Amino acid sequence: MIAVGINGYGTIGKRVADAVREQPDMRVRGVAKTSPNHEAELAVENGLPLYGAVEDRLDLFEEAGIELAGTVDVLVADSDVVVDATPSGIGAQNRELYEEHDTPALFQGGEDAEVADVSFNARSNYGEAVDADYVRVVSCNTTGLSRLVAPLRKEYGVEKVRATLVRRGGDPAQSGRGPINDILPDPVTLPSHHGPDVKTVFPDLDIDTLGLKVPATLMHMHSVNVTLSTGATAPEVRDLLAGEDRIHVIPEDTGIDGAGALKEYALDRGRPRGDLWENCLWGESVTTEDGPGGTDLYLFQAIHQESDVVPENVDAIRAVTGAADREESMATTDENMGMGL
Amino acid sequence: MIAVGINGYGTIGKRVADAVREQPDMRVRGVAKTSPNHEAELAVENGLPLYGAVEDRLDLFEEAGIELAGTVDVLVADSDVVVDATPSGIGAQNRELYEEHDTPALFQGGEDAEVADVSFNARSNYGEAVDADYVRVVSCNTTGLSRLVAPLRKEYGVEKVRATLVRRGGDPAQSGRGPINDILPDPVTLPSHHGPDVKTVFPDLDIDTLGLKVPATLMHMHSVNVTLSTGATAPEVRDLLAGEDRIHVIPEDTGIDGAGALKEYALDRGRPRGDLWENCLWGESVTTEDGPGGTDLYLFQAIHQESDVVPENVDAIRAVTGAADREESMATTDENMGMGL
Repeated sequence: MIAVGINGYGTIGKRVADAVREQPDMRVRGVAKTSPNHEAELAVENGLPLYGAVEDRLDLFEEAGIELAGTVDVLVADSDVVVDATPSGIGAQNRELYEEHDTPALFQGGEDAEVADVSFNARSNYGEAVDADYVRVVSCNTTGLSRLVAPLRKEYGVEKVRATLVRRGGDPAQSGRGPINDILPDPVTLPSHHGPDVKTVFPDLDIDTLGLKVPATLMHMHSVNVTLSTGATAPEVRDLLAGEDRIHVIPEDTGIDGAGALKEYALDRGRPRGDLWENCLWGESVTTEDGPGGTDLYLFQAIHQESDVVPENVDAIRAVTGAADREESMATTDENMGMGL
Repeated sequence: MIAVGINGYGTIGKRVADAVREQPDMRVRGVAKTSPNHEAELAVENGLPLYGAVEDRLDLFEEAGIELAGTVDVLVADSDVVVDATPSGIGAQNRELYEEHDTPALFQGGEDAEVADVSFNARSNYGEAVDADYVRVVSCNTTGLSRLVAPLRKEYGVEKVRATLVRRGGDPAQSGRGPINDILPDPVTLPSHHGPDVKTVFPDLDIDTLGLKVPATLMHMHSVNVTLSTGATAPEVRDLLAGEDRIHVIPEDTGIDGAGALKEYALDRGRPRGDLWENCLWGESVTTEDGPGGTDLYLFQAIHQESDVVPENVDAIRAVTGAADREESMATTDENMGMGL
């Protein structure tokens, strides 16, 4: 059993903890938090040993009546691998701690690529992370684009990717985020960071991304154009993508017209927290036609910012510990999480 | 003086009436309405003769204490040209009335292209509408794309346009429209109607458009990719577009980051109703790079759905009456409306 320490038990950390607990070959050694909020209470209720992440905030837990199993360095020392799910920028500060204890660590996509040896997407470059010490699981949007690009590159070759990312302004619980009643180019300069980030997974990919922010919280929406090297019909592309375990091709006539309906669907299917781990791609939107540089493919896909990286973290745990190859890991992860809609 | 009848005095009609009244060579002969709402009262207060558009609704005006100058057929008979600014689909039904009285008419972009002899954008194809009987002023989004394409085609040649239109869900006063907290591919099938609509202005243009709807009311936002036939640097393109009277290139460091700030700016500048008649294009977003089929240009532009077609209607009035050529008409329209930010 791989002992997994989870540093940070917020949006990503709590989901990774739940997913790890579903796997037959790993267990949660414990989780670390800075503050005794409702998520700290949840960890305790879930029977997860809770560690204090910041030395001078330990007494806050005592005041809140929450018992700690120790400090985060104990958790790191006792874990086979640590998943760092702390806020952007904190992961990089934590790397020294993981080095001290010689514990391999996974970072999240909010960190700069330089924090790790490999930027990771299971479908795209699992092998590069095998036995690596430090791996960065790329962000939700980069994960969504990588999952799409990987099979297209293999099957048709990709001349260029052009994607407009219509991003949710904040997560549902981030009440301080905007915009309200506005559409913001964000960033207004091009490319957005997403294109270069996808290139950390596919260094030789030609990709341009444009980002916007809108008053929505549920999911991101990608408007994607891919210029393919060889010809392809829309049904062929649709079938190819439908064959990917982490892409859900939304059938026609389901009435699922956007992120709200997708979340409702996920909740109805009993998905924990209504999570959508898969790229959710509208089959009807898949369109191909001749373009000046190849075959132009278009499609829409929705990306659940809070959860699509969760199965990727589980696979990255197996990669850095050398516990399984790509096919075996992805299959085990998907089966035990309940992938497939 | 060209006598202009305006059939429909809602979002577009009232704005066109105001713009016509600013012009030295035309006057509003009268406006027609179906209902005695606040806009009917506004017409009367503005001294515009008001006509009843529907025979069996005339008594509603009497009940509301609003005096009518007659019925719409009188207005049509007495006008040199009619601007039909009725809701989508009603214009086509009205064409028979205009034919009966042999009065040239302009329709709006909500009508099918077949309603008219020419689909019109002043910058792009003014000449085709000269002395035409029936002209359709294309929609706000098609106007915005046409204004952009016209100078790019002339200067560099255009291999292909790919645009994602992030559309406002409804106008500010359309309280029944959605979505709320969602991002909807709309339509989910491709292309959206906008690409084919731009081709009514540029029949040989290769253009693909994707449409989405978001919870915002102020403006549409276009994420545009144009593959240019010849090389161009970003500063060259920016300068070219800044030279267009109906494109406002938003300078850097103004703090104008989206539609909300643009509207605030327009209101501060005393624009009637806060209208933005120009394409509002972020200078910082203009980017070029080599692509597989030519030079890839990217940019963001915001389009004010309620007003960008207003100067186009004014020009179309001159075109169908043969009152001026393109340069003279556009210059007169812009000077008297107060174009330029």
